Amino acid sequence: MPSNTVQLIPVNSVPEISPGDNLSGIISRVIKKEGIEINNNDIIVVAQKIVSKAENRIVNLKKVKPTEFARSVAKEVAKDPRLVEVILSETKKIIRMDMRKKGHGRLIVETRNGLILANAGVDTSNVTGGGSVTLLPVDSDKSADKIKNSILKNLKRKVAVIITDTVGRPWREGLVDIAIGCAGIKPLDDKRGLKDSRGFLLNATVMATADQVASAAGLLMDKNSQTPLIIIRGLRFKTGNKGSKSLIR
Amino acid sequence: MPSNTVQLIPVNSVPEISPGDNLSGIISRVIKKEGIEINNNDIIVVAQKIVSKAENRIVNLKKVKPTEFARSVAKEVAKDPRLVEVILSETKKIIRMDMRKKGHGRLIVETRNGLILANAGVDTSNVTGGGSVTLLPVDSDKSADKIKNSILKNLKRKVAVIITDTVGRPWREGLVDIAIGCAGIKPLDDKRGLKDSRGFLLNATVMATADQVASAAGLLMDKNSQTPLIIIRGLRFKTGNKGSKSLIR
Repeated sequence: MPSNTVQLIPVNSVPEISPGDNLSGIISRVIKKEGIEINNNDIIVVAQKIVSKAENRIVNLKKVKPTEFARSVAKEVAKDPRLVEVILSETKKIIRMDMRKKGHGRLIVETRNGLILANAGVDTSNVTGGGSVTLLPVDSDKSADKIKNSILKNLKRKVAVIITDTVGRPWREGLVDIAIGCAGIKPLDDKRGLKDSRGFLLNATVMATADQVASAAGLLMDKNSQTPLIIIRGLRFKTGNKGSKSLIR
Repeated sequence: MPSNTVQLIPVNSVPEISPGDNLSGIISRVIKKEGIEINNNDIIVVAQKIVSKAENRIVNLKKVKPTEFARSVAKEVAKDPRLVEVILSETKKIIRMDMRKKGHGRLIVETRNGLILANAGVDTSNVTGGGSVTLLPVDSDKSADKIKNSILKNLKRKVAVIITDTVGRPWREGLVDIAIGCAGIKPLDDKRGLKDSRGFLLNATVMATADQVASAAGLLMDKNSQTPLIIIRGLRFKTGNKGSKSLIR
């Protein structure tokens, strides 16, 4: 096997996460318990959902009172008005609103953090209690940094951390995972100025490394299973501490 | 290490590919030579560039005579008129045309195959001779199928094959790799009707598995190195023989 093989290692026994849980501590413990030796320069990929749960970014729809605007939008996109209220509370700008077409109304918005996401990243699946939804973490870069520091403290290893969400794309069917937060890794890998294998200057090649890592991990993050945590091992990446903002156009 | 670990294995010694080369034969030989044992259900990921080269999808710009329209578009997007001529010959529809802003004009089009790509996937890097560019394969699904069948014949292993290209995205900075052709794998993994871990129905979760595989492989496909071939091992995926068209919206 070539020495530069990369491994995607799923961490299977993450417990159900509840508001107030010390997520970074739990991650360190679970990894240890699974008998996985964390290495320096591993990338720890964490699904947004468990970060949101730990940070109590959960809203019980029963407690939401939709405004009149939320109600009228809800009608057009055929969604629960309380869900629309929550989405709009996370929204800076409505980018696109597909009117109800047999229950498939769609609301694509720019979130407060600048991400362009359907439903502002508000998610109705995998939350305890049918009437609850999760919002994205308030600051996913900060959440990633906290996990990174916890692993340095608890396991004495210097890793990078990426928090991912599952998103749709214009022009392509199907969802992919992207990086909504990161720590310890440069999300963009700028290859401009380098030469290609023929000696010609590469033009405009800036790879979205953190998004590609998110997608790789996403292959093992089954939505209906309990695998919100993947370790990427053996990848050469550029370190950095400026978070994920540079991925946003 | 958990048994469901996935490996990304770069195949490092792929020779320079020239028009008319038997690419599928070369791939089988290189893999053997590298001492990599191909397994059933491996996914072989191949960069578009070497497929295009083998299929002689190379155009020498010196031999291109731009039309007046190509010339006028070229002026607006600040590109070589001959390159624009080649791009337009691959184009069904211009989706977006960013006027020249300090040399960064942009032409985003729908190709004859329905892909939405900057410059119709016409690529100026990594081609022998500074004045040449590559076009996408005429039918990347067919190219993938050919490689799949060759590996079955030569190495007696049943694999999936994905051909990738590197693309930009609206709303996100940086490039990622996507699947422009595939064989032996269902590009979309439809999880609708499945239940999440709390027993609630998953709504509208269709993962773009082939694109996520492309992105995972892209992490090891350095544009300025010679690694156009990656093996993905250990991933559970759904087999299929309908190619990549379902990824196009």
